[in-house]
Amino acid sequence: MRKELYGHEISVLRDTFRRLLRRHAKTNIVKLIKKTHPADLALLFRYFNDVEQKTLFNLMDDPEKTAEFLIELDDGIVAPLLEDEDPQRIVQFFRELGSNDQAYILGLLPEEKAQSIMDLMRAEEQEEVEEIMAYPEDSAGSIMSTDVFTLNQDTLAKDAIAALQGFEQAEMVFYLYVTDEDNRLAGVISLRDLVTTKPDATLKDIMIKQVHSVRPETDQEEVAKIVSRYNYLALPVVDMENHILGIVTVDDVVDIIREEATEDFLQMAGVGKDREILLKSTFEESKLRFPWLFATWLGGIVATIIVTSFGDLLNRIFVLAAFMPIIAGMGGNMGTQSSTIVVRGMATGRVDFGNAFKIILKEIRVGLILGAFYGLLLGIYAYFRFYDVSPYLGLVVGLSIYCSMLIATTIGAFVPIFLRRIGVDPAIATGPFVTTSIDILGVSIYFLIATALLPV
Amino acid sequence: MRKELYGHEISVLRDTFRRLLRRHAKTNIVKLIKKTHPADLALLFRYFNDVEQKTLFNLMDDPEKTAEFLIELDDGIVAPLLEDEDPQRIVQFFRELGSNDQAYILGLLPEEKAQSIMDLMRAEEQEEVEEIMAYPEDSAGSIMSTDVFTLNQDTLAKDAIAALQGFEQAEMVFYLYVTDEDNRLAGVISLRDLVTTKPDATLKDIMIKQVHSVRPETDQEEVAKIVSRYNYLALPVVDMENHILGIVTVDDVVDIIREEATEDFLQMAGVGKDREILLKSTFEESKLRFPWLFATWLGGIVATIIVTSFGDLLNRIFVLAAFMPIIAGMGGNMGTQSSTIVVRGMATGRVDFGNAFKIILKEIRVGLILGAFYGLLLGIYAYFRFYDVSPYLGLVVGLSIYCSMLIATTIGAFVPIFLRRIGVDPAIATGPFVTTSIDILGVSIYFLIATALLPV
Repeated sequence: MRKELYGHEISVLRDTFRRLLRRHAKTNIVKLIKKTHPADLALLFRYFNDVEQKTLFNLMDDPEKTAEFLIELDDGIVAPLLEDEDPQRIVQFFRELGSNDQAYILGLLPEEKAQSIMDLMRAEEQEEVEEIMAYPEDSAGSIMSTDVFTLNQDTLAKDAIAALQGFEQAEMVFYLYVTDEDNRLAGVISLRDLVTTKPDATLKDIMIKQVHSVRPETDQEEVAKIVSRYNYLALPVVDMENHILGIVTVDDVVDIIREEATEDFLQMAGVGKDREILLKSTFEESKLRFPWLFATWLGGIVATIIVTSFGDLLNRIFVLAAFMPIIAGMGGNMGTQSSTIVVRGMATGRVDFGNAFKIILKEIRVGLILGAFYGLLLGIYAYFRFYDVSPYLGLVVGLSIYCSMLIATTIGAFVPIFLRRIGVDPAIATGPFVTTSIDILGVSIYFLIATALLPV
Repeated sequence: MRKELYGHEISVLRDTFRRLLRRHAKTNIVKLIKKTHPADLALLFRYFNDVEQKTLFNLMDDPEKTAEFLIELDDGIVAPLLEDEDPQRIVQFFRELGSNDQAYILGLLPEEKAQSIMDLMRAEEQEEVEEIMAYPEDSAGSIMSTDVFTLNQDTLAKDAIAALQGFEQAEMVFYLYVTDEDNRLAGVISLRDLVTTKPDATLKDIMIKQVHSVRPETDQEEVAKIVSRYNYLALPVVDMENHILGIVTVDDVVDIIREEATEDFLQMAGVGKDREILLKSTFEESKLRFPWLFATWLGGIVATIIVTSFGDLLNRIFVLAAFMPIIAGMGGNMGTQSSTIVVRGMATGRVDFGNAFKIILKEIRVGLILGAFYGLLLGIYAYFRFYDVSPYLGLVVGLSIYCSMLIATTIGAFVPIFLRRIGVDPAIATGPFVTTSIDILGVSIYFLIATALLPV
């Protein structure tokens, strides 16, 4: 009886593979590969270097398992692994895959390589793959499986079951889609209802007529939302005439949800939207992180210019410099909190334009409360600690941190909502943009208040 | 034919409900409720106030639909909605729910209310619910459905199909679990395999004998990982003797994945792990955000003390203050980027102790590259801009930002890995802790370098 493969078991398996690889114990490696689930093999590949990966891959001989392994493998590993591989061998594995999985792997390979594999495929398969590859990236069309089990609505239940027995392709059949005389999607029946109904009922009698469906251009995030909201196991993809093109199954949706949910936060931190950033080289990662750091850098230069313009004041009361970090830090964290709450709310569907204004107002109220509290706290500290410098210093820093925190919640909540309104992905810019603008505004307000309140 | 309900359609529906509510058009409201999917109703409730919610809820009369609606509703809405409701009415809806869903709702209610509902349930149902409520929060036991379809391994395929027809309870049957003579989990058969096999085959002959299972104490996040890694539709939960206690189905896993994936980032921003923070009151949200802001505040005071201790230097060269924001800002963003990458990597399973060291080293290399670039850039700017103040100032700020960015990537990558090693949730503290410590270290290094390099 197999139990869950926790992290511990994965590392035991990894060490066993390593030991066998060192000893060049081919027969044992082949045996171990046979015993290991393809999904676990894919996971293990993260820990092996290029040479180890190639050695193991060359020892895989079960086409079905190897095909599943390739699908489960991280994007970043697939290309280098298959690059020098004989197209003939790759095509062997491809025979075990649906068109959407074939398209996915071909999309990861250099064009030439992909073409050489395509040339070895049957004309009909080629066509199907090309069709899928023509859909936009991350659309329902690009992830749908084209092996769908459909039957006409006049079919009898018993004939439907017989037909099911002849349908080898689809690994995940739980719904039977029913079409009308014009071959349009007319209804859906769960396998369970099919089995438990009277054998002589027609599908038309037992099918559910309200079927949710999406178009091939629909974004996969939208597909994931529908599947998760209504607890579907699959969602049909139809064309303008309501003919079924394919289905998106829940197992793909699970992966999409995980990736999309976390992708937002990579973008918020300004590290691009590359899901496999951990597998990138040092140089590539640096390139991904470069642009937003540059924006921060420019913002920093602006802050420098602002501070310098208050040179006389600083020259007189250098203690003012000591409170710059706390004012910027509190504002920065406060702003990040607000934009994290809002960006996450948009990802889970809890923030939209209908309630955006209410949410911004609430963040402002939170800013008023927390700003007042921390302003008072810092003001009291500064008053007693630096009474000798100026009795007004407490008021200056207290008021400044209050303003900075209030501005921070406002900007933090407003920016992602505004970006979405103008059609920009709110996660892209939010993080560094919010902290940088809060930095600049915070420092300006601080020195303006100081100029106004501190006696010359 | 029903198409996907996009945000637009939801807001149309919301406005229609509002209009009908204003007009007290009861009959029309009841009709509209009947036409609306329970999941959509649950979504709509986010936009209605308490009074509107109560009015609508009182007009729901289909027990099955209302039960589904309650399950789909946000946690934060369930309690106020049911608080003053007649237990008799609630029990009506409860009859339509599985024990796990009953336990979930009871867990949201005040103890007294929950008890008054329990008292109205049948003894057997009560027992089942109490059993589930005894499992730890967020464990497999607390989310499993106890309505499982199991049969003995000696059953014939045709008898199994007949048995399936008599099994009303389970809404989501796609696997048939097979037990041995001691009633232990022995295998699993997909419904499709059952239907397409010879009627006289025994289940033992056609079942898959390797079944993944978890224990009721297993964390739901682990359950979600297994289901998503191996593309399962359900996962059995077994006791120590391998008797089936229940199953966790993929539709619950989808919700868990979304919540867990985004929860990390709320924690990283220091706003607690309350998934429904958007539904909290202003005051409650302020309370959730308070603790980490306090940590930031303390860190800021430390920074203040450090800066003040370099008072003589600042007093002489006040321009030094102008570069504090850029040094802190670049370090802060750099550190947030690194810890976001690592925390997300741990959430998706790509970072573990096996490769933690390698990942920290890579982050350090990224820090070396980007730090060198931006150090040079800022150094050149400061050299030309403030040559009159000191020809060394370029060197001081360039070197400082270089060190600050290098330290930022190191701390940003190290802290979450270290927290996890010592058994603390890495997301809890990472964000504010990383930025605050980078602030303090950055400012210290800056003034130390300035003291060392700038002529007295």
